[in-house]
Amino acid sequence: MIYFDTDYMAGAHPKVMERLVQTNAEQTIGYGSDHYTLRAKELVKQACSAPDARVYFLVGGTQTNSTVIDGVLERHEGVLAAESGHINVHESGAIEATGHKVLTLPSHGGKVKAEDVRNFISNFYSDDTYEHMVAPGMLYISFPTEYGTLYSLKELEDLSEACHGAGIPLFIDGARLGYGLVAKENDVTLADIARLSDVFYIGGTKVGALFGEAVVITNPDLLKHPVPLIKQHGALMAKGRLLGVQFESLFTDGLYYEISREVVQKAVRLKEAFVAKGYTVEVDSPTNQQFFRLPNDVVDKLKENVSFEMWGPRGETESVVRFVTGWTTTDAEIDKLIEYINQ
Amino acid sequence: MIYFDTDYMAGAHPKVMERLVQTNAEQTIGYGSDHYTLRAKELVKQACSAPDARVYFLVGGTQTNSTVIDGVLERHEGVLAAESGHINVHESGAIEATGHKVLTLPSHGGKVKAEDVRNFISNFYSDDTYEHMVAPGMLYISFPTEYGTLYSLKELEDLSEACHGAGIPLFIDGARLGYGLVAKENDVTLADIARLSDVFYIGGTKVGALFGEAVVITNPDLLKHPVPLIKQHGALMAKGRLLGVQFESLFTDGLYYEISREVVQKAVRLKEAFVAKGYTVEVDSPTNQQFFRLPNDVVDKLKENVSFEMWGPRGETESVVRFVTGWTTTDAEIDKLIEYINQ
Amino acid sequence: MIYFDTDYMAGAHPKVMERLVQTNAEQTIGYGSDHYTLRAKELVKQACSAPDARVYFLVGGTQTNSTVIDGVLERHEGVLAAESGHINVHESGAIEATGHKVLTLPSHGGKVKAEDVRNFISNFYSDDTYEHMVAPGMLYISFPTEYGTLYSLKELEDLSEACHGAGIPLFIDGARLGYGLVAKENDVTLADIARLSDVFYIGGTKVGALFGEAVVITNPDLLKHPVPLIKQHGALMAKGRLLGVQFESLFTDGLYYEISREVVQKAVRLKEAFVAKGYTVEVDSPTNQQFFRLPNDVVDKLKENVSFEMWGPRGETESVVRFVTGWTTTDAEIDKLIEYINQ
Amino acid sequence: MIYFDTDYMAGAHPKVMERLVQTNAEQTIGYGSDHYTLRAKELVKQACSAPDARVYFLVGGTQTNSTVIDGVLERHEGVLAAESGHINVHESGAIEATGHKVLTLPSHGGKVKAEDVRNFISNFYSDDTYEHMVAPGMLYISFPTEYGTLYSLKELEDLSEACHGAGIPLFIDGARLGYGLVAKENDVTLADIARLSDVFYIGGTKVGALFGEAVVITNPDLLKHPVPLIKQHGALMAKGRLLGVQFESLFTDGLYYEISREVVQKAVRLKEAFVAKGYTVEVDSPTNQQFFRLPNDVVDKLKENVSFEMWGPRGETESVVRFVTGWTTTDAEIDKLIEYINQ
Repeated sequence: MIYFDTDYMAGAHPKVMERLVQTNAEQTIGYGSDHYTLRAKELVKQACSAPDARVYFLVGGTQTNSTVIDGVLERHEGVLAAESGHINVHESGAIEATGHKVLTLPSHGGKVKAEDVRNFISNFYSDDTYEHMVAPGMLYISFPTEYGTLYSLKELEDLSEACHGAGIPLFIDGARLGYGLVAKENDVTLADIARLSDVFYIGGTKVGALFGEAVVITNPDLLKHPVPLIKQHGALMAKGRLLGVQFESLFTDGLYYEISREVVQKAVRLKEAFVAKGYTVEVDSPTNQQFFRLPNDVVDKLKENVSFEMWGPRGETESVVRFVTGWTTTDAEIDKLIEYINQ
Repeated sequence: MIYFDTDYMAGAHPKVMERLVQTNAEQTIGYGSDHYTLRAKELVKQACSAPDARVYFLVGGTQTNSTVIDGVLERHEGVLAAESGHINVHESGAIEATGHKVLTLPSHGGKVKAEDVRNFISNFYSDDTYEHMVAPGMLYISFPTEYGTLYSLKELEDLSEACHGAGIPLFIDGARLGYGLVAKENDVTLADIARLSDVFYIGGTKVGALFGEAVVITNPDLLKHPVPLIKQHGALMAKGRLLGVQFESLFTDGLYYEISREVVQKAVRLKEAFVAKGYTVEVDSPTNQQFFRLPNDVVDKLKENVSFEMWGPRGETESVVRFVTGWTTTDAEIDKLIEYINQ
Repeated sequence: MIYFDTDYMAGAHPKVMERLVQTNAEQTIGYGSDHYTLRAKELVKQACSAPDARVYFLVGGTQTNSTVIDGVLERHEGVLAAESGHINVHESGAIEATGHKVLTLPSHGGKVKAEDVRNFISNFYSDDTYEHMVAPGMLYISFPTEYGTLYSLKELEDLSEACHGAGIPLFIDGARLGYGLVAKENDVTLADIARLSDVFYIGGTKVGALFGEAVVITNPDLLKHPVPLIKQHGALMAKGRLLGVQFESLFTDGLYYEISREVVQKAVRLKEAFVAKGYTVEVDSPTNQQFFRLPNDVVDKLKENVSFEMWGPRGETESVVRFVTGWTTTDAEIDKLIEYINQ
Repeated sequence: MIYFDTDYMAGAHPKVMERLVQTNAEQTIGYGSDHYTLRAKELVKQACSAPDARVYFLVGGTQTNSTVIDGVLERHEGVLAAESGHINVHESGAIEATGHKVLTLPSHGGKVKAEDVRNFISNFYSDDTYEHMVAPGMLYISFPTEYGTLYSLKELEDLSEACHGAGIPLFIDGARLGYGLVAKENDVTLADIARLSDVFYIGGTKVGALFGEAVVITNPDLLKHPVPLIKQHGALMAKGRLLGVQFESLFTDGLYYEISREVVQKAVRLKEAFVAKGYTVEVDSPTNQQFFRLPNDVVDKLKENVSFEMWGPRGETESVVRFVTGWTTTDAEIDKLIEYINQ
């Protein structure tokens, strides 16, 4: 059986794991004040060309989203997000649990349009009863999106302007950021992300770490008391250096990009194989998540040897499926998959 | 100027006001343990043919909705509601502020379909990732809806069955309940409401009281500790007897129905006048809220002598407007309005 | 039976009630934008010598406390209060329900000491682990306190300085404010309250209104979006003008002070009678709440003709009791009580 | 420099780390449905002699406390805890952030007395205004406590009875559980803990794991929907098997006890050395945290070679300090420390 279910099926990339083993017995102070974490913060800031940013490491995505959003919003505000956004669909109401509404915008392959943001805000304030409604207080987007798609630099600049023109911050969920940055079609850099957003995070869990997300705060007016906020959300790791060690490793000698590139290359080969065979690409993703519409008998046949997820309910004659590559995916596995596809 | 903006523009119906004046100097214990409140509870239960129900009086609708919904739901649950539902649109995120997501269903003139409820729930539990999603924990509907429309008895029975079949309670927001109960097209009684829902409220604020909503809990398993819950939500009135006096008055000699009938009769006359003149009925409402689509010059002309709300943004050539009647609306005012319409 | 249980046992002072009746049929727009409310706001600001303050009217004390405190605090902050503070004891956890801890200070007859505030804050920030603790984000005091006691002007200035020196706002719960302002021992004016605090409220419910609390925000940096905040807390009254009419009435021709003075005079006569008889004053209160320690047989004897509250559990031989006067209390009732005391 | 600051200064015990390395490349499904987690759950249940318990693994203590407490309490309830309890002092208000008050009881060396629990509850319900107060909904204790102290079996039985007699559950924070179970003075077994409480957790972070807490729910009526609750609190680990692998390792061949015993033995040697030298034991702890009152010059001298925490502010002539042993502490380090003490 070869696995394409998701990108968090294995542990850490061997180089990351090796550093955790090397540093395992060392004693450091807790809660992220250790020297590994301090150095990792510097490396992340350098990678972002954002020397004045503040960087914090959290364990997982849902806790990061709810901590940041709860910390940024005022009590009467909600967060704008694509209807398909992770915070709106797959976090068990973690945002609402902190008291805030998710205000949904149409999803275009997982992306939101700047025009929709502008319209939402202008409609909101032109409604006489707006003070009885939830005010849009920030915008949440993901890069890549939940469908593996990417914003172009132009789109991101437009979104950033739409937000800042309205006085609300832009927050980018980068749980799979690496896979977006290295995509062939991508023209956005980490420095662009840092420059255009107010706060974002660089995902580790899905990109080579055991776990961990690096939150980068570039807007100095936001999240002025991050430590008690993180602690209150149960997201302050006692052995904080575990996060420091991992991000130090990922941002040394370009490992984060190296892992991302290898993973996306596998995804591209996989996509080409499905396309060559004539199957329909459901969402045109340039990153490590690929969505196809396959005849049900093909699905069933593949399932004998390959593990992957159905995307939504099984259709009458064909169904949408998702294939994801990760740091463990080998060229040999892709060869094998291509073989199965062409059988 | 004559006013059709809304049904909470004046104080209390004279009979209610008279009782408040009569009882004003009397001293009673606070927080709703007084004899007026106890008697009002009995009268409400009788009116609902629900001798075992528990009745509590709160000041306003938003606080009632958030107190009930927060008290009924478990932490991981959300409340199903029409996209147009008051709790989803016009309560400044009061539900989310208690930690719960509003799960939206399509609005059909303000109403939800039992079929949509069933589909939502069955899709939810057939999704492999449902434990990462917000579970539907109750259904909120309004009767009449925000558009003045009504559920038929058959529809209400179907909704009740859809809820109870799935093990979730049905909550009915009756902020304008009286106007629904007396409508000519209506075949639902207060006893039906009590029998088919698990908790609902009888609106006073918009139906003759100075303020006040009577929450009726018919499901004994729900809201087992209402008093501290109400207090915690800032909704326990010190001089609770003000609510008791008003509801005692409203449910003595059928005053609640009498007020409702008079108000709806005025609305029907008003509607007929617009229809007779050939204007389009935007939503076909049998209650005290009426929605028309009028040419903009008609809107402007009427505005010179009549106060009413635009419903949504002004259109290019015509716009949707809302006319609402209340206990102060007189036949003379309707005559006058008809005159303006026919000028 | 004569009643001294509390000061919210009857309706509104006749002059207030009269205005509600006079204005009852008038139609105004809702939610506090009507002309009565606008005028009441002006009168309140004049009474406070605070022309730049913002004024909002809410229905009751608990909702006012939780709305203000939730709106002022950041997520990681708590509110300092006397251990005996109403928000800490008798609001069913309304503050915590908004996500904030009540940080308790010793109670000295219901009052907190500036020194304790300063020590709490300095100890907090000198603790190495303070980022894992709840930061003091504001101070809540009541004037008069829950025990009827008052801060002197000097004490209030000292508290104000302790707060502002530490960069935290001072919030004064004035549910019984009038009774404090008119007390013989008092040297604090409404203008002092407005000048020394950042936000406070003038209680109506217990001082002649049917219900209502006037929140006065003097610090322009606080509570920048009060309307959606109030709405979200379920505290925005549909017929907002009911609050406007009442406060307009209370702040016309000094009615608020007139009511307060009469009520406190009765309390003083009552206190003198107990003292003259040789009974122990439990808390030395100059306002309308009086606390005595009485032999149990005296308690039992009085209970035959007089209604009042036990304050805490009944003791072996003597018990603490509370007597409260209100706008309905007459000199004849005090005479009668004195008679019973001296029997 | 030798370190006695705390027990989370290093990574995982070598045997645990080894298993993480061995299993690193294996692909499993996420969120704790993998075979390692399933097996770890079985091992934990066996170790607890609680075959019907439900077991869930979370990353850290604060998130575990807030998830469990928020999941157990009803909206109007609070959690009883020692004033010194971690949830009351050092979790940045995480409990209040979920909407619940911490109701404090006196701390006796970190412990609460069953008598105090009984009195609190009986006083609560005998107060006429109890519906305006926060109801005690559960009891939180820690074993060992924040001061390293332990409840005897008798005390634990008494507490359990006090809770269950009042119909409230008992929750035990076992962040350092192993160190309590192996202490010479201890007469409580893991099976006793499971039998006497309703929910508790076995700490991994401080007892040999990289991170991780095993929540054991023995009361079938509690926490019926743990997965969405955990997810909502941001505490559901994507690579859940990391927790499974670690707890499988800790509960294979008694490793958890073995680590605990070694750590406590070092602490006992350390304590004996201080006692032998005549220094005052501040809290008499039989576990891995030791508290002494030392002359300031001794403190300063030791600080040159040894790292440890001050416990509270430095005194005039002497200060309280804390020494903690962990899995990295060696006998050689203790020898060295003894040398420094005796210099």
